[in-house]
Parts: sequence; structure tokens; C-alpha cells
Amino acid sequence: MTAKFIVIEGLEGSGKSTAMKVCAELLKNAGIDFITTREPGGTPVAEQLRSVVKECQGEQISTQTELLLMYAARSQLLENVIRPALAQDTWVLGDRHDLSSQAYQGGGREVDAEVLDFLGQYVLDGLRPDLTLYLDIDPALGLERARGRGELDRIEQEDLSFFIRTRERYLALAHADDSIYIIDASQSMEQVHQALADVLVPFIAEQ
Amino acid sequence: MTAKFIVIEGLEGSGKSTAMKVCAELLKNAGIDFITTREPGGTPVAEQLRSVVKECQGEQISTQTELLLMYAARSQLLENVIRPALAQDTWVLGDRHDLSSQAYQGGGREVDAEVLDFLGQYVLDGLRPDLTLYLDIDPALGLERARGRGELDRIEQEDLSFFIRTRERYLALAHADDSIYIIDASQSMEQVHQALADVLVPFIAEQ
Repeated sequence: MTAKFIVIEGLEGSGKSTAMKVCAELLKNAGIDFITTREPGGTPVAEQLRSVVKECQGEQISTQTELLLMYAARSQLLENVIRPALAQDTWVLGDRHDLSSQAYQGGGREVDAEVLDFLGQYVLDGLRPDLTLYLDIDPALGLERARGRGELDRIEQEDLSFFIRTRERYLALAHADDSIYIIDASQSMEQVHQALADVLVPFIAEQ
Repeated sequence: MTAKFIVIEGLEGSGKSTAMKVCAELLKNAGIDFITTREPGGTPVAEQLRSVVKECQGEQISTQTELLLMYAARSQLLENVIRPALAQDTWVLGDRHDLSSQAYQGGGREVDAEVLDFLGQYVLDGLRPDLTLYLDIDPALGLERARGRGELDRIEQEDLSFFIRTRERYLALAHADDSIYIIDASQSMEQVHQALADVLVPFIAEQ
């Protein structure tokens, strides 16, 4: 059995944290050795970059800077955590990965596909998640849930149109890729839990 | 008169800090309105990135991460400091700029020219220094001087071959570009001072 890289994706308020817990539990129950990661972040350097990109106050962060920081953090996580884990037959369960950059920076910020393709090739060097579970939610509902949790970070403060473009890109990318499953995150927690299991349990069994 | 962008470049221990002071004095004497910058750094966000890239201890920073952080910091400085200054007819005197990435990452780290070209086009968007003063020094001598000043940062701790490759790239780029002047930094301080003035004074007079 080769170790697999599974990623949870979705907008703010789509329930990624709960989904991470559900999937971790399913992997544990199957006796799989795994680690969890989050992006941007997951290493000391990458966490410093996460703070810069999410918490910056008082200085405008350019679209270019944001994009380059996301890939700089991803490069650290890939080289120092994800690749070494997979090489040692440890599965990786990630809270966000490259699809987030494609959706947020590509869709939300409207960065050219050419730029994203270039950075993706340079940093990922062919590594792709084996399975992505995308929690789809109406941005207005997601933001309402996120606001209910407390203060919003720099990116979460974007206007609704930003998140509408991000969701559209998520959906377009999911429809074009068999390894990305769309989970309806507007359902009850039990239904989402079940939908995650319906994808992940057979995926584990196949390995 | 249009504002100009002047950059001081060179290896560790080549005397960049002194050259910055000399050039600042010459600009001041000519009655020119200017600001100084340093790279990586020069804005609060870019200075945070400078700390990450120069002071990180205990975690290996990948070549990709280093490169992306340099361009992320440069993007912040360009958008928030350099472009606004030039637009307001204020000259910019920079301690390092893009040539450093081409020499250190391209030469020292052997990053592909294609990658540097792509990032340069994406971040600089055509902006180029009007004049670059490259302080050329034998890396062994430069490192000896830098060590004499105290503790070396992460990049300054690279081995000699890294700096030999970096210097070779600096020289090759300088020879191919009329706007880059090579100053022999192994000379006495007075001679270097004079060599800087010999380039900068007529450059100012031409404007």
C-alpha cells in the first residue's frame, strides 16, 4: 500500500475543521498511519508566512505578494513535511492545498492561469493529492457562519463577489477533475459526515 | 527631470553600506529629493520576510521558498514604496534589487533562467533601475570582511563556491548591461568613493 495524500477544501464557514476531524477519525478507525497539515502553514517558517498573509494590518499586501507567499509556504510544507511523510508510507490529511490557490488567487483575485500554472509546476513538481473533498457552500451562508465564530482575518474580510468568484472556480476545477469530490456543505452535520464517509471509506478500502 | 532609480549591488563585505552613504551624500549635494530602500525589506511586511529568509534557524529553507520570498518582498517594496516614490518625482537609492536575485539565486543557487525571467516579468512588470553600481570583490576577501563585522546570517554562511558562482553571475550580467557599472571594491575606501562619484556625478548632471 502506498501512502495517500487527501485534502479537504472549501470556503470560510464550509466546515473544513469538522471535516478534518471526521476524516481523521475514519483514517484512524481503518488503522492508517497519517499526519495532518494545514495551509498556509504547517512548518515553523510556513506558519510565520501564514501570520504575515492573514494577519497583516496597516499595509496593503499586493496580489503578487499574497500569491508568492502562498507558494513559498507550500514549498516549505511540501519539502519538509508532505514529501518526507509520503516517502515513509505515512498518509497526509491536509486542510487546504494547491486547489485553494487556484480558487482564491485564480478565481477570487483573478490571477492569470499562466502564472498559477507556472508556480504550480515549479513548486509542486508533479505532486498531486490522491483525493480532494471539496465542501461546497453558498458564500453568503459560509461567511455568516464564519462571522458567527468571531473576528475575520484579512482574506475573510473580502467582499462577497470575491467569494462568489472563488466558489465558481472551485466548482469548475472540481467538475474537471475526477479526484475532486463535491460535498454539499449546506446539509446537516450528520449528512455531511455521512457524505464524507461515503467517499473516504471506499477510497481507503481500495488501497 | 524624471526621478531615477539607482541601485547599489555586491557581495557580502563589498562595502555596500558605505557606498550607500557616499551616494546619498552625492544626491543630497546635488539637491535631489530621494529616498533609500533595502532589499529584501523596506516595508513592514517585507522586513518580516527579510527576517524569515535571513534569520531562520532550525528549519531548512528550500531554494524555491527563498526565491519566492525574495520576490514577495520585492513586490511589496515596489508597489508600496518604489513605484509611488518615482511617480511623485522622488529618486530611489536602493541597497540591492532584482540583480541580487539573479546573481544569488540564479548564480549561487543555480535556479533556472526561465524561472527567474518569469518571476522578474511578473513582479517587476518592466520596471528597471536606471543605474546600478556593482561593487565587485573577491568572495574570499568579502567574506573575511563580513566575518570581521560579527555573526553571519543564513545566506552569508554558505560556502565559498556559492559566492564564487554568485560573483560570476554578477559580472556576466554587468558585462551584458550598459546601465550596470562595475566598481573595483578591493581598492582603498577613497578610491572606491572616487569611482562611485565618477559614475554618479555625471549621471546626475545628465538628468
